[in-house]
Amino acid sequence: MLCITNIMWSKINISSLHPRSYGIILWNGSQRSFLVLTPAFIGLRKVVFYMRKEFRSLLEIEEARSLILSRLPLTVRETVDLAASLGRVLGERVTSGIDVPGFDRASMDGYAVRSSDVLGAREDIPVTLELIGSIPMGSAPEISVGSGQAAEVSTGSMMPLGADAVVMVEYSEIGEGDVHIFRPLHTGENVIKAGSDISLGETVLSPGVKIGPREIGVLAASGKDRVQVRLLTVAIASTGDELVEPGGTLGTGKVYDVNSYTISAAAQEAGAVPIRYGILPDKWEAMAQALQKMARNNSMILVSGSTSAGTGDMIYRVLEDLGEITFHGVNLKPGKPTIFGVLENKPFLGLPGYPTSALTVFDLLGAPAIRAALGLKSSDRRFKARLARPVRTDGRHQMLAVGLSEGLAYPVDKGSGAITTLSRADGAAEIPAGTEYLNHGDEVTVVPLGDVSVPDLVLAGEPSEILEAVLERLSFDVRYLQMGSRQGLVAIEDGIADASVVASGEEIPLPDGTILARGFRRELGLMAKSCLYMDNLSSARALTWRRESEMSRAMAVALEGRKLTSTDIAKTHSALAAAIVAGKADLGFGEGFAARTAGLCFRPLAWDEVDLVIRKAKADLPAMKALMEALRSLDNMNLPEAESAE
Amino acid sequence: MLCITNIMWSKINISSLHPRSYGIILWNGSQRSFLVLTPAFIGLRKVVFYMRKEFRSLLEIEEARSLILSRLPLTVRETVDLAASLGRVLGERVTSGIDVPGFDRASMDGYAVRSSDVLGAREDIPVTLELIGSIPMGSAPEISVGSGQAAEVSTGSMMPLGADAVVMVEYSEIGEGDVHIFRPLHTGENVIKAGSDISLGETVLSPGVKIGPREIGVLAASGKDRVQVRLLTVAIASTGDELVEPGGTLGTGKVYDVNSYTISAAAQEAGAVPIRYGILPDKWEAMAQALQKMARNNSMILVSGSTSAGTGDMIYRVLEDLGEITFHGVNLKPGKPTIFGVLENKPFLGLPGYPTSALTVFDLLGAPAIRAALGLKSSDRRFKARLARPVRTDGRHQMLAVGLSEGLAYPVDKGSGAITTLSRADGAAEIPAGTEYLNHGDEVTVVPLGDVSVPDLVLAGEPSEILEAVLERLSFDVRYLQMGSRQGLVAIEDGIADASVVASGEEIPLPDGTILARGFRRELGLMAKSCLYMDNLSSARALTWRRESEMSRAMAVALEGRKLTSTDIAKTHSALAAAIVAGKADLGFGEGFAARTAGLCFRPLAWDEVDLVIRKAKADLPAMKALMEALRSLDNMNLPEAESAE
Repeated sequence: MLCITNIMWSKINISSLHPRSYGIILWNGSQRSFLVLTPAFIGLRKVVFYMRKEFRSLLEIEEARSLILSRLPLTVRETVDLAASLGRVLGERVTSGIDVPGFDRASMDGYAVRSSDVLGAREDIPVTLELIGSIPMGSAPEISVGSGQAAEVSTGSMMPLGADAVVMVEYSEIGEGDVHIFRPLHTGENVIKAGSDISLGETVLSPGVKIGPREIGVLAASGKDRVQVRLLTVAIASTGDELVEPGGTLGTGKVYDVNSYTISAAAQEAGAVPIRYGILPDKWEAMAQALQKMARNNSMILVSGSTSAGTGDMIYRVLEDLGEITFHGVNLKPGKPTIFGVLENKPFLGLPGYPTSALTVFDLLGAPAIRAALGLKSSDRRFKARLARPVRTDGRHQMLAVGLSEGLAYPVDKGSGAITTLSRADGAAEIPAGTEYLNHGDEVTVVPLGDVSVPDLVLAGEPSEILEAVLERLSFDVRYLQMGSRQGLVAIEDGIADASVVASGEEIPLPDGTILARGFRRELGLMAKSCLYMDNLSSARALTWRRESEMSRAMAVALEGRKLTSTDIAKTHSALAAAIVAGKADLGFGEGFAARTAGLCFRPLAWDEVDLVIRKAKADLPAMKALMEALRSLDNMNLPEAESAE
Repeated sequence: MLCITNIMWSKINISSLHPRSYGIILWNGSQRSFLVLTPAFIGLRKVVFYMRKEFRSLLEIEEARSLILSRLPLTVRETVDLAASLGRVLGERVTSGIDVPGFDRASMDGYAVRSSDVLGAREDIPVTLELIGSIPMGSAPEISVGSGQAAEVSTGSMMPLGADAVVMVEYSEIGEGDVHIFRPLHTGENVIKAGSDISLGETVLSPGVKIGPREIGVLAASGKDRVQVRLLTVAIASTGDELVEPGGTLGTGKVYDVNSYTISAAAQEAGAVPIRYGILPDKWEAMAQALQKMARNNSMILVSGSTSAGTGDMIYRVLEDLGEITFHGVNLKPGKPTIFGVLENKPFLGLPGYPTSALTVFDLLGAPAIRAALGLKSSDRRFKARLARPVRTDGRHQMLAVGLSEGLAYPVDKGSGAITTLSRADGAAEIPAGTEYLNHGDEVTVVPLGDVSVPDLVLAGEPSEILEAVLERLSFDVRYLQMGSRQGLVAIEDGIADASVVASGEEIPLPDGTILARGFRRELGLMAKSCLYMDNLSSARALTWRRESEMSRAMAVALEGRKLTSTDIAKTHSALAAAIVAGKADLGFGEGFAARTAGLCFRPLAWDEVDLVIRKAKADLPAMKALMEALRSLDNMNLPEAESAE
């Protein structure tokens, strides 16, 4: 029996057929059964095998999200102390049981009077009232103010009976047992009426509000010391035989488990309480037991890895056999192998194994479910930006990691799941399905990543550990893209960078609208663990720099034609030094500062000058001025180990 | 001996002198000693008394802030587990001890091959390679790929020796012991190089970074399971005899302590660990002891209240006698009585007693100090908005609480320290000193308050508890300003509101660009705890509505001229009902829904219709559509106690 839920025309790749022949495919949602109609009909079983491995019907992201939002996890309520409620989601409607303030209060230091008594008061004709006493803060007044009388009050004192206004001290003059008033008042002047802040019975907070300092203030003012909040526990685990817990020893072929940490943190930021179950074994029985336990003890399950349709992918097998699959495969890059379903009656979301994919899919599908379950109002934080570089994609709906600078977005994707892609990105630009090329200047919708703060300043260009150290000490947030002098100038022209870092021997033509600012001189030379390498260059495994970069050129000039056995390329001076310290290479050429900081033997061979090419429009930014100031006082800066510089 | 630090020309108010005569005043910074030169010279002692009470030299806010930033508290370092580091500030420079990945990995499912072997592969002329095995995830490959050979790999598998590229499954076809490749590859294609994510020795995170999910990912990827973070403890207390802990009993003249809760929460959001010391006694000896203990055990002290210069204000006395005052009095509204100094060598900030003042001054002076001490980069979140209403001020530098709606800012200040002013505000607009009037449309700089999210929809107009209940169930964030039908229409014209709520008997002219959407009918009538009041109106203490409001008019019509003894004014239907339940009044006129929800006796007297006047430009907002949908299905909505409605 084949219940057909989808029909599609597609290329198929099936054994015994000419590759990529065309056929009509009929299948059902769980993708287990197919019927293929082609010029040469194939039996069902073989087709099933290939379709499971190679072909997947991909759901659009909006459809995936609405399926997930229709199967939300359940929250429970718990009562916590007021101080502990910060950041939690309110689970009750809070109405005030009191008026705030509960009594009429003086809003100024001065004298409580009857406004009718001072109607005729003028600067030259003051009205004199008998001073009958004063009312301390926090007590019920023991006096009442009759006609012709006044009582001294402080800001916040309870108003005595009879008085309906307060004269400010500035418009009065104290005498012997009396006080002279120089200005008339209307009734209620300088008096805070009871209930004017919060009325008894007023709804001060609704359920679903995230509790911040101001909400805490309203709760405290109403007298609440305990609050009912919502609780949502999410079980989190990673899968994969190649994973090792951070802190453990990395065997060959192993990598550290990133996802259970990032997803736990992201779930916490979304308002859930994450319960980590670590790394699950890649065996059916053990994984099934672990997943069922996670499901029974929590409201939702989030797993990463093993979600593809390959022979080694366990997650979808377990979910299919013990639970129910709602969808498997999403038309999104990254994120295709995403799976969602139900296990032990709890919603189960399986994220891809790549750290960037896992976090991106969580942001798009997991976080909205958590927030909706907690009753947090959804807030659309997307905004528009223009592309600073053209972008070529493969037609799939894609979330492209971008950096942001003044309304411009530039791709920072390192590709293939690098976790540093996300840590260097400000947001993800949404490239719609069907788009294959976007021009420089095209508008894109960007979703900010977490609590993104746009940097105060963006520098791009020549790598320098000295400059890294200077930037670290600034109180401004400066992004420093170490990409090479030439690329740095391109970044200025693209509008991405506020200033570029250049270390060119020759005069470089300044781009329009920029000025040159002198930076600093630095020593360059050879560095090695053992000084012996300095005179035995041919025997050393050396690190070089990217071809046609300034460092590469400077190195060739300094070495005067001597050849080195190059093993790898360094991207920054600190990475170069560290690679040598770790023994991955014997020799390198770079900043003396980096060598000395790393404790390496250093032979100075050259000097160069690192300068900044600054956009005139940015020269007055406080961050830019601070940077210039810091560079000017570089000699006096207490940089580590720099005292030994010549 | 009088050491003169300031000289100023000012109005002075001194006994025995004609009020407000002019004089030249010479004083020193701590404002304890003065010399006054006036037409009639006065002795020093009397002048001291008045100056302390009435006159204060006010520091500009920028100067106050830079004085505070030059005397930062000290942080200590502590080591925490990776999972517990979320939200903390990194205290160390993190360089990776490993390459990530540590080995070359396949980035696709497919076959690892030598790219040179498949140079000639084409769709019609495939290259056939011997399939020598497969490489499972997480293990070192036990095979190496020679010429003419291929090994099956999964995404993430370690690359076997010999192979330098991976053929995607889509461009291959498996045979009997061999595999056919249909496309050429270049070297490194579909291979993630070792160290391409993070290089050994690369600085992955700098100190001062706030740790979020992406930073946690980078730390986990580098293998770190423990992280060094910064710790800053801040001692927090409130002062004032009128204060009572929330949860306690409110005596006459008492209010609940709001500030120690709001300031603790705000300090925590800024990155500090708040240590609450509760309410300090208003006696010199006890307060001095408490403050010294707070100073000794923490890095910074934050106190609110008692900071004025009046006779009851203890804080500045203690700080002056036992510590050192840096400044006292800031030219900011709110916030004048702010004090800063040093006690037991720790920075000491005294905030004003009004909740709004305390929180505003903390945001301007306290939070920057905490962030700077933790090394968090300052981020400027200010933005421009245009005023939707004219604003009149008194020339002082002012932070005016505003609501935000599409680039427009409208004042929401309730005045005099109401904590609900801040809870209803989206931001604080900075009004510079010397400004006395700003026009509708003038641009202001706005500082967002906390994690502000702009509402999806703003409604303004006629109060209704039925509408409150409908909005609570929407998944959108709707701000409902219950100000009256007429003011609601003004709010639409001002551009603040997306729709206004009207309940007018007569036809109202629709503002330009709006349409009328039918809402719902509601019962109105008298409500009371005891039904006896319904026939004995003259003996009841009644609540009325604001003069000229729709409810006021409807009430007069329904009562047909019968007079009531009015004690107070109600602002919303729920507050009205609650006041009657609490016994503050006996009788009121309002929604039957509100009365029944509160369990009161209700006598229906009239019907009215509540409709929405919607801006055409907003009619298609998802939130607006959801609201319209909800109103249409109102009859089916399961509103509490509404089944008894007639």
